[in-house]
Amino acid sequence: MTATLPSAAVLGARAFAALAGLNRFTDEPGKLTRLYLSPAHRQAAEWTKGAMEVAGLTAFIDAAGSVQGRREGATPGLPAVLIGSHIDTVKDGGRFDGNLGVVAGILAAQALRDAGIVLPFALEVVAFGDEETVRFPTDLSTSHALIGEYRPDWLDGTDADGVKLRDALVKFGGDPAGIAGLARKPGSLKAYLEVHIEQGPVLEASGEAVGIVTAIAAQKRARVRVTGEAGHAGTVPMALRKDALAAAAEMALALEEIARGHDQALGTVGVFRPDPGATNVVPGAVDFTIDFRAPANQTVASMDAAIQTRFGEIAARRGVRLEITPYSQSKAVPMDEGLQEAFATGIARTGSNLSARRLPSGAGHDAMAIAAFCPAAMLFVRCEKGISHSPLENMTELDAGIAIRVLLETLLELARGEG
Amino acid sequence: MTATLPSAAVLGARAFAALAGLNRFTDEPGKLTRLYLSPAHRQAAEWTKGAMEVAGLTAFIDAAGSVQGRREGATPGLPAVLIGSHIDTVKDGGRFDGNLGVVAGILAAQALRDAGIVLPFALEVVAFGDEETVRFPTDLSTSHALIGEYRPDWLDGTDADGVKLRDALVKFGGDPAGIAGLARKPGSLKAYLEVHIEQGPVLEASGEAVGIVTAIAAQKRARVRVTGEAGHAGTVPMALRKDALAAAAEMALALEEIARGHDQALGTVGVFRPDPGATNVVPGAVDFTIDFRAPANQTVASMDAAIQTRFGEIAARRGVRLEITPYSQSKAVPMDEGLQEAFATGIARTGSNLSARRLPSGAGHDAMAIAAFCPAAMLFVRCEKGISHSPLENMTELDAGIAIRVLLETLLELARGEG
Repeated sequence: MTATLPSAAVLGARAFAALAGLNRFTDEPGKLTRLYLSPAHRQAAEWTKGAMEVAGLTAFIDAAGSVQGRREGATPGLPAVLIGSHIDTVKDGGRFDGNLGVVAGILAAQALRDAGIVLPFALEVVAFGDEETVRFPTDLSTSHALIGEYRPDWLDGTDADGVKLRDALVKFGGDPAGIAGLARKPGSLKAYLEVHIEQGPVLEASGEAVGIVTAIAAQKRARVRVTGEAGHAGTVPMALRKDALAAAAEMALALEEIARGHDQALGTVGVFRPDPGATNVVPGAVDFTIDFRAPANQTVASMDAAIQTRFGEIAARRGVRLEITPYSQSKAVPMDEGLQEAFATGIARTGSNLSARRLPSGAGHDAMAIAAFCPAAMLFVRCEKGISHSPLENMTELDAGIAIRVLLETLLELARGEG
Repeated sequence: MTATLPSAAVLGARAFAALAGLNRFTDEPGKLTRLYLSPAHRQAAEWTKGAMEVAGLTAFIDAAGSVQGRREGATPGLPAVLIGSHIDTVKDGGRFDGNLGVVAGILAAQALRDAGIVLPFALEVVAFGDEETVRFPTDLSTSHALIGEYRPDWLDGTDADGVKLRDALVKFGGDPAGIAGLARKPGSLKAYLEVHIEQGPVLEASGEAVGIVTAIAAQKRARVRVTGEAGHAGTVPMALRKDALAAAAEMALALEEIARGHDQALGTVGVFRPDPGATNVVPGAVDFTIDFRAPANQTVASMDAAIQTRFGEIAARRGVRLEITPYSQSKAVPMDEGLQEAFATGIARTGSNLSARRLPSGAGHDAMAIAAFCPAAMLFVRCEKGISHSPLENMTELDAGIAIRVLLETLLELARGEG
């Protein structure tokens, strides 16, 4: 049955050619910037619709701006396996983040059509448009639309120029009133599969082309303000200082230690702003952010408790004031066990030299939203040095082909499960 | 002899009245901003000249913009004891920094004149104009002019508006060609005394109105750049990170520990800028500054060595690159022992409840320049919470009076030494 499917090398070449086509569309010449509902997004959506049609899918750009394509299974109207990812990017982003998953879905559909394979389920591909949350204050709005959890107040959110999402959507050619109608009926989706570059260095470090995501990590973010006493760097003795920067530095190291001490956990201080921030002034205050994640909710809760305790001890010992203001929190989203197994079988059938490493995703993805509606799973693909959200984002053509081949084998495995 | 001198209370009241007069002159209404050679500086110089004349001094504004006043001693042309400080301020500065010392000198001269006291040396008062180095890239240029160490290239330095010091000086009414002529003849100055607010919290913490400066601290400053690897906060495992912020935080704490471990030493990280500085990105680089000081040159050298070693260890252990670029260094300037003793006697004669605490100055002062020419010493005066270079800078009227009374008693002690 699989003898008629293209090799990973061929699929990789097709993927890179398709990505080159899709990535011509940018809001900033010389960079890849494609924000939700921008002119470049419209062009990319039209291109994606065309590519879907060439691949044998019936396609349309939906009311929220996503591109949807479908090929019926053995009989019309069967529940579908949905393959998806996103075609919006961050500003000056990479070529593969999101785009790879959309192209993978289209090329898999095309290969199955070309091979004359009829599946016992419908096959759908979706190109979401609002995953990066760069332009409007939303949260995976296009994938939430698909499962009937679109929040109407998102339409009133504005971008940096004061443009409302509602107006941008109309200008794009979408239909705010039609979003509610995008909600899928219960039971209409059998499974959601997403191929995505890892955006991290784990697979490269272990020499593996692909990996199976176990869960999208729980995450918490907070702004921290440490207030001590500003003073002249030349006149305030060390013993009389309440140096906010030294206190904040100690907290940053405490967060690092807490993350290292918890299973598969991450802890990051990314923003760090001393006030006043002058060479000869002992900082009177520091504002910094903490971001911590782990695949298990209880790990994040335990980290949170440890942060409160350790930061509090440091502040008390140094006589500085501490304010921790959480502003974002998400629960862990486990990926479906059965689909993880199907990916593992797909990997085994693709190549005996491949292993089926399991790893958590620290970053959020559309799969987080869809997992609330139907079984969902993700396949990560090795990327260069773990770099993403950057023009330096890179991967090999062969790895892209391997990922698509794994996706095909996984679909066939799911088909076998139906038999 | 001293029975005829005003009390500390009277001198304090006179000082605050004089400061209110002098501090009307500002370049920014509502703030005290008086930059070197600005219109407000000219007005303040005129006021100072007038105040000197009322106090019985022969006064003039010199070629570099300093105000100089002199009252002859027992016979004309004797070597002088010079009392000085500065009337320029930082932007939005305090009322006492510099101004107190100038007013103290003028009020001391007036009190001696009023009491009919003739000294065995001339008495001079100087109000320098370029101590804060806010406007032009100089280094105590007006006090260096007095000792014949004015650097001609300072005249070509420009301010933020591109105005050359030379042109600003001409506009002010000064005379670039006359600066060389300001150099005092060897032996013409017996001593230099400067009264200045502490700008630190030591005297307040120990409950003392005044203190004697032992040395102006040696100081070194460097820019430090730590380069690791930027990464996604959600995808790079802790074990694979080269987090520049964590490395820099550890270095900031190492500097603090090094400073605490050295005699009377200070160490400060004031600037700290992570790159890119976003919540969800592990910082790839951090630029920060280090400023370290101590009264003894060898202490600063020992700190420097410890910094190189400790920072190097941290960078090696964390796999980050380290660049330390020193950009400013000054040797310690010890204050004259004999003059410190004279101040101690002056303090003892002023009040039995006063003690003669010795403390280093971590900040630079005009006394640093003058000390290369004649014996120099400084009297620090208690200020509120150690705050300076701020509109919140404050001190009590009585402390100002005590400082002037100590200055008078010290001059009488020096006179006794001549007898």
